[in-house]
Amino acid sequence: MTSQTGPFIQSAAPDGFTNLALGQPSPRLLPMELFAGAAAERLHPGADPLVLQYGTRTGEMGFRQALADFVSQGHGIDIGSEQLMAAGSISLSLNMMCDLFGRRRGLVISEDPTYFLARNIFESSGMDVVGVPVDHEGMIIDELERIIASGIRPDFVYTIPSFHNPTSVTLSNARRERLVALALRYDFMVVADEPYNLLYFGNRAPAPLATLDDGRERVISVSSFSKILGPGLRAGWIQAAPSLIERIADHGVISSGGALNPVITHIVGALLENGSLATHIAALRNTFQARKDALVTALDRDLPTLKFHDPAGGYFLWIKLPEGIPASRLLTHARRRDISFMPGSSCALSAELDDHIRLSFAFYEEAELTAAAAVLTAVIGDWERNQTNY
Amino acid sequence: MTSQTGPFIQSAAPDGFTNLALGQPSPRLLPMELFAGAAAERLHPGADPLVLQYGTRTGEMGFRQALADFVSQGHGIDIGSEQLMAAGSISLSLNMMCDLFGRRRGLVISEDPTYFLARNIFESSGMDVVGVPVDHEGMIIDELERIIASGIRPDFVYTIPSFHNPTSVTLSNARRERLVALALRYDFMVVADEPYNLLYFGNRAPAPLATLDDGRERVISVSSFSKILGPGLRAGWIQAAPSLIERIADHGVISSGGALNPVITHIVGALLENGSLATHIAALRNTFQARKDALVTALDRDLPTLKFHDPAGGYFLWIKLPEGIPASRLLTHARRRDISFMPGSSCALSAELDDHIRLSFAFYEEAELTAAAAVLTAVIGDWERNQTNY
Repeated sequence: MTSQTGPFIQSAAPDGFTNLALGQPSPRLLPMELFAGAAAERLHPGADPLVLQYGTRTGEMGFRQALADFVSQGHGIDIGSEQLMAAGSISLSLNMMCDLFGRRRGLVISEDPTYFLARNIFESSGMDVVGVPVDHEGMIIDELERIIASGIRPDFVYTIPSFHNPTSVTLSNARRERLVALALRYDFMVVADEPYNLLYFGNRAPAPLATLDDGRERVISVSSFSKILGPGLRAGWIQAAPSLIERIADHGVISSGGALNPVITHIVGALLENGSLATHIAALRNTFQARKDALVTALDRDLPTLKFHDPAGGYFLWIKLPEGIPASRLLTHARRRDISFMPGSSCALSAELDDHIRLSFAFYEEAELTAAAAVLTAVIGDWERNQTNY
Repeated sequence: MTSQTGPFIQSAAPDGFTNLALGQPSPRLLPMELFAGAAAERLHPGADPLVLQYGTRTGEMGFRQALADFVSQGHGIDIGSEQLMAAGSISLSLNMMCDLFGRRRGLVISEDPTYFLARNIFESSGMDVVGVPVDHEGMIIDELERIIASGIRPDFVYTIPSFHNPTSVTLSNARRERLVALALRYDFMVVADEPYNLLYFGNRAPAPLATLDDGRERVISVSSFSKILGPGLRAGWIQAAPSLIERIADHGVISSGGALNPVITHIVGALLENGSLATHIAALRNTFQARKDALVTALDRDLPTLKFHDPAGGYFLWIKLPEGIPASRLLTHARRRDISFMPGSSCALSAELDDHIRLSFAFYEEAELTAAAAVLTAVIGDWERNQTNY
């Protein structure tokens, strides 16, 4: 049984309980041996002590070059190190985007639903958040344009364009182009949160949105090693036009202490250079696809009336519950049977998505997911039979 | 010759050049062997993979308990882990303080002069900065009170209370009490930047300012391992009342991803637990005191008319130049002789301190500092003889 006890952020998974809300790699998928090997390679008694000195503003050049190769090969594109900088976690990058690009109007427009903690990150930086609905092609750009035409002008649009959290949809190419064109026309930035891009199950995800920017200086893609190596590393990267990279590097925190996590970045650099991170990610893709397939197959079989988009990548399944079942109340019953999920309202900006639930397939093994689907089926069945008593 | 080449933040020290502006430990003082040993102890193939999982909001409990012992023993006080949380660099903590405590008025009041990059950190968070002068007892609280009484109300006062950067003075106990009383009376916070506290040369520095808070919930002390272990770690801690720790942990970035650098914090925890960081710091104290003594002795001998406070700890010497010599222009001449320093105006908020220079004694060996003092003496002597031509 996959379990994880202790005071972990975003809640723990005690023994005997299946917490399908957990958007984390399972303990078995955290490659301690791989990371420890890289740490030993980069940190040893004879290593250069300057590894412990202040880093550079955009990250050590060897890391940035290895990162350029990694991102280019991973996406089948060709970008150079001048479009990349080392960063901390995506949360921290988003916080920094608010400082750098959020001061004129104090407003971000986001997909609704979105990453359930994004609102708190933006509000902690003093910004308001307005939502735009999502369909099977991602953010509905017609709706975004309507909002903007009504006079609501954001500092930036926040999007998770590939394998969106929570809906798993990917923004279509046509909408990507329209979004960047709108940014240019109405003078706002686009901040793309792209942690799942390399976790595709069939075709590759589109290139990071910043790749489309093409000199327009409107798009910043933020990514991290959290979902593909280890969340505790708190290390990631930013892709943008060189002029934007330069502007980000002028942030007071970076010009004071350098790019945000140089020692960890140095260790991760070893895994980029020797190709072992790419190998690890290829294995993760297979694992997550098998887990997703197990969950989807079980739900298709047990609850054929359930509606959801079959994820082409990422961590999540976004499910519309049968008519009349409120997710928040269903959760109470699910917990009594030792399973849990994330009610749609947790991901909602408008608080109108209590007819949806988010299931993560990243944390549990296939058999556990199949069993959990059976329990969920039973809980929903009980609700439908007994709803007047519930 | 101590040198450091490469694109390091806050400038490099090429061979044959003595850059007395560098507020960094020298490469020889960066304990790679010690840190690599701790890394190997905490990261190995059999280690718990959950070390790579999301951390907790305030830092892993084992680390916080070891930190409580370290801080308590280092300062001769008795504080518990509930008053401490793991953090990133001080720059990042200051940025977070702006988000959390800087939104009502957008104003911070700071010592003037202060840490030369502090203004950029605060301004990156959209805050204005007003300065208060400093004398041999630290921030002049009468002046602070006069500013506040005139109607200028800060969100918080930013202070470097022990071994101040750049002046090296320590805020007197009486002024510490008055500062906290003012904070309570006029409803502002006090954010104390305390990276040098354990680097005292004689008597211990006063306890971190947050220790004085005593339930008033007005003082937050931010510190880091940058100056006592390695700047590249980007790891530190925050000391404050438990209610304030809780409030900081609610920041969107922390409630999303946990305390800021869990893997590095985990490694540093080994050095706290086995006492080797305390031993390393004791050695640093001796080294920095010897370096300080070498610089002060040379300047006393060569330039007896120079005025400065003999530092009781920290990294810096703050020198008033002989009458009529502008630091910024003296610097041009110094560079021609392969030495450099930080002109006072770089540390000034009011831009009126071009009659001062900041010399760091942390980076160079004693003989190098003695030689640099001789060159500085010659440059000043040349200026005084030739000022009409300069």
